[in-house]
Amino acid sequence: MIVLGIDPGSRITGYGAIEIVGSERRVLAYGVLKSGKAADHAIRLARIHEGLLEILDQIKPDACAIEMPVYAQNAQSMLKLGRAQAAAMLAATNRQIPIVEYTPKQIKKSVTGNGNASKEQVWFMVQKILSISENRGLDASDALAIGLCHSHRLRTGDTLGRSQGTWAAFVRANPDRIR
Amino acid sequence: MIVLGIDPGSRITGYGAIEIVGSERRVLAYGVLKSGKAADHAIRLARIHEGLLEILDQIKPDACAIEMPVYAQNAQSMLKLGRAQAAAMLAATNRQIPIVEYTPKQIKKSVTGNGNASKEQVWFMVQKILSISENRGLDASDALAIGLCHSHRLRTGDTLGRSQGTWAAFVRANPDRIR
Repeated sequence: MIVLGIDPGSRITGYGAIEIVGSERRVLAYGVLKSGKAADHAIRLARIHEGLLEILDQIKPDACAIEMPVYAQNAQSMLKLGRAQAAAMLAATNRQIPIVEYTPKQIKKSVTGNGNASKEQVWFMVQKILSISENRGLDASDALAIGLCHSHRLRTGDTLGRSQGTWAAFVRANPDRIR
Repeated sequence: MIVLGIDPGSRITGYGAIEIVGSERRVLAYGVLKSGKAADHAIRLARIHEGLLEILDQIKPDACAIEMPVYAQNAQSMLKLGRAQAAAMLAATNRQIPIVEYTPKQIKKSVTGNGNASKEQVWFMVQKILSISENRGLDASDALAIGLCHSHRLRTGDTLGRSQGTWAAFVRANPDRIR
């Protein structure tokens, strides 16, 4: 089973693919997609969307997971974040891959045991759990943390709030997609 | 020249197509797309996206326009609005149709002459300018107002703020797309 964590942003989108074999979790790929500085937001979104479609076709994940932020500095950054998320969500649905959402707290708690952990603590645990050392940027490591969070829930069946309903509904509707 | 105004929302997306012939503007189609109450947000976005792709293929507009809200009641509604907008923006770019953004103030000013006009005043002017009487819901009439705003700017070349840069950049990059 392969999980792709995605950390969408209007300029940089992180991705991290994790393979789960038994109790082991192994990194398949991680990095960032840059959507450039094009004045046209629609073109930037198309770059995120197309970049992720390529990654989905290479990695063929069984599930995707993204971060669902609860607040942002201001309304405009929340709007742009929502747009970047949709580019990721539409790429996943385009390839008929379920995509679930986790809050930052759920992700931090799942990876470090502490819902208020710092970014450094999250990166430390991501490195430790996945035996990686190369830092390819915060967006890439955040994406791996998101992927770890989902892989953890798949293994333990933990209820982690709102995303549970989405996943359960998807499983009911698409029994053949779940290995 | 055909302009498609789109008013994206996570539950209801309005659309309104306007044909410009000389100084005349004629409604080709208007209505709403409902994305349903699916628990899975990605599935709702996919419905908006696919619904708009169908409309684009039927109407074949030369340009699309959407509303770019400046603020919302709360961060979560801004996030969801951004997602719905991206579903529209990605549908337009998928069909290589330029999509420009206008603030609510720009749209109201363009249609009624008053940037602080009420929704009723906007609907009154939309009916008057386009000679329509059937109210197909606020989202549909808002979409027509957005389309009128863009058709007005195309005719007059008015500078209407931030969207100007986007449109100018698109024209430079895609001279063959502009009739």
